Amino acid sequence: MTHEAPRHDVAVIGGGQLARMMQQPAIALGLRLCLLAEGPDVSAAQVIGDHHVGTHTDLDDLRRAVDDAPVVTFDHEHVPPEHLRTLAQEGHVCRPGPDALIHAQDKLVMRRRLTELGVPCPRWAEVHEPVDVEAFGFPAIVKTARGGYDGKGVWKAESLADLDEPFRAESALLVEELVPFRRELSAQVARSATGEIVDYPVVESRQVDGVCFEVVAPAPNLDPALEARARRIARTVAEELDVVGMLAVELFETEDDQVLVNELAMRPHNTGHWSIDGAVTSQFENHLRAVTGLPLGSTTPRQPWTVMVNILGGAVTELAAQREVALAAQPDVKVHLYGKAVKPGRKVGHVTAVGEDLEDVLRRARHSAALLTDGEQP
Amino acid sequence: MTHEAPRHDVAVIGGGQLARMMQQPAIALGLRLCLLAEGPDVSAAQVIGDHHVGTHTDLDDLRRAVDDAPVVTFDHEHVPPEHLRTLAQEGHVCRPGPDALIHAQDKLVMRRRLTELGVPCPRWAEVHEPVDVEAFGFPAIVKTARGGYDGKGVWKAESLADLDEPFRAESALLVEELVPFRRELSAQVARSATGEIVDYPVVESRQVDGVCFEVVAPAPNLDPALEARARRIARTVAEELDVVGMLAVELFETEDDQVLVNELAMRPHNTGHWSIDGAVTSQFENHLRAVTGLPLGSTTPRQPWTVMVNILGGAVTELAAQREVALAAQPDVKVHLYGKAVKPGRKVGHVTAVGEDLEDVLRRARHSAALLTDGEQP
Repeated sequence: MTHEAPRHDVAVIGGGQLARMMQQPAIALGLRLCLLAEGPDVSAAQVIGDHHVGTHTDLDDLRRAVDDAPVVTFDHEHVPPEHLRTLAQEGHVCRPGPDALIHAQDKLVMRRRLTELGVPCPRWAEVHEPVDVEAFGFPAIVKTARGGYDGKGVWKAESLADLDEPFRAESALLVEELVPFRRELSAQVARSATGEIVDYPVVESRQVDGVCFEVVAPAPNLDPALEARARRIARTVAEELDVVGMLAVELFETEDDQVLVNELAMRPHNTGHWSIDGAVTSQFENHLRAVTGLPLGSTTPRQPWTVMVNILGGAVTELAAQREVALAAQPDVKVHLYGKAVKPGRKVGHVTAVGEDLEDVLRRARHSAALLTDGEQP
Repeated sequence: MTHEAPRHDVAVIGGGQLARMMQQPAIALGLRLCLLAEGPDVSAAQVIGDHHVGTHTDLDDLRRAVDDAPVVTFDHEHVPPEHLRTLAQEGHVCRPGPDALIHAQDKLVMRRRLTELGVPCPRWAEVHEPVDVEAFGFPAIVKTARGGYDGKGVWKAESLADLDEPFRAESALLVEELVPFRRELSAQVARSATGEIVDYPVVESRQVDGVCFEVVAPAPNLDPALEARARRIARTVAEELDVVGMLAVELFETEDDQVLVNELAMRPHNTGHWSIDGAVTSQFENHLRAVTGLPLGSTTPRQPWTVMVNILGGAVTELAAQREVALAAQPDVKVHLYGKAVKPGRKVGHVTAVGEDLEDVLRRARHSAALLTDGEQP
């Protein structure tokens, strides 16, 4: 019996823009991807020919999609852990594995574990009924343990009257203190299946209604001691939780000079898109290197400043037509479109500018994004 | 009757590494490619899902491959002009068009035209029998007008005895003086369907037996007057020959400070691979922007020096295994593999290093390429 080499190196579950942007470094590295896509023409299915259309909660769809790929990785964190265990029993290596991934799937599990590890978090508690929130103290942030993203599943509660909607959610709930923060930071590391770790510069993530719209790399005027602490937290989390692949730790920089963990993501993350054009090795390349056990690439920035601005669905509905205007206006801004139909607020692309003068870099990136979002000068 | 948007933006004829490397910027720009591939698993077919397997000399294969794509472009210059005229009549725009492309297909047509335009060339003549070469004078370079590439179809002739093989070729022949040159240069421009032109820094191309093995960008110690002349030649050729897309003009820098045109290529070219990691906009991105009529991107280098070294098939036959060694040795060198089986001397990938110190950049790029070629330290 001869053993043929598998046709694919990595199966990606989920056909969004994160899977799409893995294909570019996969082409360079000579890694062959296959995909479980939600539909025949979703973002990543447009550029990864070998895709199976199905749903990530259906074990048979998962089996068909990962078929001959030794390694399985993810565009999102929503695959049920029991399915990942089954795939593992059937000979696939899931990276990150279900025991790591559960910390990105369930905020209660995450908070308990980080607290055990001594990783600084906002004060938090599990809550079962509204009076538990009242006992914790208003104002507070109420979150579903599972299923939230981009501001969904998160409520600010000032009084008992604000708790009707959260307590209708099907998920368990937790409550967290409302942290008085200066800004939000993101610390990313790549951890290879070999245990090798590299970290990226800590960036500033600017958000509105829980959705990232702009990232500045590195975070301007960040106290070196806080930067070191943020990097150490990300390394600790990656190692202690046995994350393989990219890990993003979203942090609050508090008014009293602390960094507190807000969220974890175990995949390439919106706050790392700057690295495609701004770092020697992008988060997508290092994610693929990490999950395939390859040595990791340099995370050094290519220029002193990189600014990434999201294109969130706005007045411009025909992105392909507007692309021409944006490219003409800024010949050195890099435009990334995700092949998605424009809907209000939907992430349909991003732009990146790099350079030595932060104000100039910000201006160019924002101008390009404004042209692609609303078609106007900012 | 409703007009649906075409499913593809650009059809690429030929499934080699040039088509493969177009897919990365196509993903970013949101351009959808389809492909005529020589086989189901050739380099570009691995990463462009919508491919038709067939041959570029078969009109029906061409028709099926370009089907719903308004724009047709190329991985190579070997499509018969009459087929391109037919595709044009059937509503596709070929970029470059057949009237431009013929100058990259037929060296006699090219030499006649460049001579008419006053573009400096080596002394040359059409030859029909060996005595014509003798009359031209030995030593001389004899070339087939059509079908040559990477040193094939080119002979150095010292006497009549060296002419047996060239005159067995099926193509018409030309003869050129043996130019005493210091080095070979390459001048690249992108010319958009709108007429917009941008040029890249002139690079030094280091060749053995007619095959490029190393490119340094920009060409070190190049006299600014010669650099300006090389850029002007490339712009003139692009405009006068109505090239749309990337144009590479390979040049001799002679011992008496001239630049003479050696060859033309109307597509992304090996001497421009440095631009993927070394310029703000790669030749592949600008090729796609040009053929789709989009505004062109900045050609500014990202760092003072970029060195690209080809991986030519050598002692290493299992590139996927050796990749690990090369990535570990040089975390900031970018590795590009083409998904091709290793054969002696075959171009199977390239590596790129960038930086401020040329000696260091050369050392790192050569080290990485040596590990991927022969598995040894250089």
